[in-house]
Amino acid sequence: MSETRALAEFVLGCRSGDIPADVRHEAHRALLNIIGCSLGGARHPAVDRVLTAFAPVAGAPTASLLGRAERLDPLHAALVNGISSHVLDYDDTVPKNYGHHSSPVASALLAYASVNPVSGRDFVDAFVLGFDVSSRVANAVYPAHYDAGWHMTGTVGVLGAAAAVGRLLGLTAGQMVWALGLAATQSAGLREMFGSMAKSFHAGRAAQNGYGAALLAHSGFTAGEHGLDGPRGFAAVLASEYDLSRITVALGEQFELRDNTYKPFPCGIVIHPTIDGCIRLRHEHAIEASDVTAVRLRVAPLVIDLCNQRPITRGLQGKFSVYHGAAIGLVCGRAGLREFSDDAVNDPAIARVRDLTTATAAATVSEDQAHVEVALRDGRTVSTFVEASIGNVRHPLSDARLEAKFREQAGTVLPPPAIDVLARLCWDVDTVMDMREVVAVATPRALASS
Amino acid sequence: MSETRALAEFVLGCRSGDIPADVRHEAHRALLNIIGCSLGGARHPAVDRVLTAFAPVAGAPTASLLGRAERLDPLHAALVNGISSHVLDYDDTVPKNYGHHSSPVASALLAYASVNPVSGRDFVDAFVLGFDVSSRVANAVYPAHYDAGWHMTGTVGVLGAAAAVGRLLGLTAGQMVWALGLAATQSAGLREMFGSMAKSFHAGRAAQNGYGAALLAHSGFTAGEHGLDGPRGFAAVLASEYDLSRITVALGEQFELRDNTYKPFPCGIVIHPTIDGCIRLRHEHAIEASDVTAVRLRVAPLVIDLCNQRPITRGLQGKFSVYHGAAIGLVCGRAGLREFSDDAVNDPAIARVRDLTTATAAATVSEDQAHVEVALRDGRTVSTFVEASIGNVRHPLSDARLEAKFREQAGTVLPPPAIDVLARLCWDVDTVMDMREVVAVATPRALASS
Repeated sequence: MSETRALAEFVLGCRSGDIPADVRHEAHRALLNIIGCSLGGARHPAVDRVLTAFAPVAGAPTASLLGRAERLDPLHAALVNGISSHVLDYDDTVPKNYGHHSSPVASALLAYASVNPVSGRDFVDAFVLGFDVSSRVANAVYPAHYDAGWHMTGTVGVLGAAAAVGRLLGLTAGQMVWALGLAATQSAGLREMFGSMAKSFHAGRAAQNGYGAALLAHSGFTAGEHGLDGPRGFAAVLASEYDLSRITVALGEQFELRDNTYKPFPCGIVIHPTIDGCIRLRHEHAIEASDVTAVRLRVAPLVIDLCNQRPITRGLQGKFSVYHGAAIGLVCGRAGLREFSDDAVNDPAIARVRDLTTATAAATVSEDQAHVEVALRDGRTVSTFVEASIGNVRHPLSDARLEAKFREQAGTVLPPPAIDVLARLCWDVDTVMDMREVVAVATPRALASS
Repeated sequence: MSETRALAEFVLGCRSGDIPADVRHEAHRALLNIIGCSLGGARHPAVDRVLTAFAPVAGAPTASLLGRAERLDPLHAALVNGISSHVLDYDDTVPKNYGHHSSPVASALLAYASVNPVSGRDFVDAFVLGFDVSSRVANAVYPAHYDAGWHMTGTVGVLGAAAAVGRLLGLTAGQMVWALGLAATQSAGLREMFGSMAKSFHAGRAAQNGYGAALLAHSGFTAGEHGLDGPRGFAAVLASEYDLSRITVALGEQFELRDNTYKPFPCGIVIHPTIDGCIRLRHEHAIEASDVTAVRLRVAPLVIDLCNQRPITRGLQGKFSVYHGAAIGLVCGRAGLREFSDDAVNDPAIARVRDLTTATAAATVSEDQAHVEVALRDGRTVSTFVEASIGNVRHPLSDARLEAKFREQAGTVLPPPAIDVLARLCWDVDTVMDMREVVAVATPRALASS
């Protein structure tokens, strides 16, 4: 059986009871985190502008947007949820393939579930399976696909969104093969866009187009039968090297959510060790911004490849500048949403340290590690080695810290009582009767009337 | 200046008077042909099904669809126009890069012009320039991009649609750079989908997503500045070999429309020489279907790569089967819409000859040539060499034959008086005051009230 067909049948055939408890818990963590990220990003100018562009042509306003009072049709809601959840670069990551799989999958599902009755349990099942599809296909083409310049979140997220919505739509196996084909043939997203709003657009379009692929397949719109595995299919065309067996290995036993991680800092994940180290040095040595005369980093080669942006003038660029990461760690002692704003990027004290920072690639340094050395005005040099940065696979965020992150982001658009309710609903999502309840609490309008 | 920026400035800066008369005439031919193709394809099940899937979520029904009475928002209208214009594989082709550039560009423009006042002259200018963008970028990545398995019409058509709509929207140069970036980062479409409805979906999505990219840029939604030429941009990511200079060579002097061709047969263009030869042999030797005992083809290597489909059961597959092309040429003596229906593909007499057909690749045979040899029951063997097939660059369709093709297709949905009016409007499009007049004539509803 082809990998496309096998994956389609697995997504439809897996029963709720087949999903282990630890995987369900990880799904709850991912859901709490991604809803928090959408709330945190809901007021970003990228969201304002996509609404300006598309609200006039959108369909009947039946679907809610996380963190926004406007309503749109469900496909555009999926787009907006995807943008808001990814625009801060604060969403989750599977480090082994650098995909942010929750954003496209959950954004499509939350849009779908805002206009259709879906129980929390069915929602979680669909989320787990959509995440699995997205990350398994990513595994099959990583690293060649990513190294070539594809933004994994866009390219495989569309498959996960199609699978997740397709399961809730009750597609037949043949239709699910078409849905995956229609998703594969919309696979898109260039890393060239990093540092601009178009990066978050990838996640949004993946959510919207995957959802659309499921609707099309449901209506009998045909596609090739080998969208993933054919000689002109996704893997063959979008990766110079790939291993199709990774799509289907241990299906139903290995769940990709187990490899998911949650960011403590809203920026490219490979900058995290540098930030972590700089914050530590600042605290340990009581470094003042004006004391710094040089910062020397030794980091994994991917850091230079991915996060080499400078000179920079925009917050979104700071998220892909390891120099900015070092500077805010040393100058601010923290790296929250504020430190990646346009204002922070243009702050003279931060810019000064950023300009004093150099980075060299070292093949012996892994992507969750960094060497940081800081020269000070008094002649001292202080340094540290981050052996496993916080939030990464070997040092995961606790449930409590994840909830604190959620609360910080939710607080930008929701009042405290709603945040309490929403957090509880996310942890207890398996018992929610109708996911419209969750979406309603996560929209400002619903709160005005509560 | 980067190629992305140079192209953006050219699209905005080129004046109507800078477009030579022969290029304008080719634009009129292309417009007549693509509108005809949309009318011919308007009742295809692919169009019915995309409407079933998306009409419920589409926006206010302000925009008309060619050949259909339904109305949708303009972005969905662009999608449907793109599908109807490409689903019969009867639209135009630039053989040097195998792109079908009119479909995405004109489909987006006709949707835009059905909800905005656009003069015929401005419309033609935008079409010429959008076509130029699409085909120039195709030139830069052909053949590596195409050979890898990308469907050029989808991957570059989105750029042409963005440029064309962006010009009519009056984007600034900076916004046009973003529009091209937002289009580049949505570039998609796999050749694996050939033989299914998803092939025509590529053209439709390219029209819709290019249009959307222009709207987003107009609203200030940012993208990378090097969508086409950056180290992780379109060319670098989607082609193993490319030549960026081909994007900008002789801008404003060489117009790509001069290399456009129009299909006499509704199928993959590389099958055309085989069909042409089989029809000739049938007429010259009065061959009856039952006389044929073997058909031996020697064709260009791309024919085997692209049009090797069998066994087949669907009309859409027949369009990519050189065996089916040979069979209908010999059995039917023609290759019109009917010969690529599901019924024709499953006709026993046609299937018999198809099964008797073999094809070998010969590097000495060009893609507009074919050797055809037919063995007959009475022991005779007849053969022909098609040196330049009809409709190809060296043997273009005349204006009269192009209009006859248009009339055949338009006749499937429009009454004769409307066809006369529409044909005249297309030839005289430069004098049309408001393109809504053209779109109105091309929709069945408008005719019911005329």
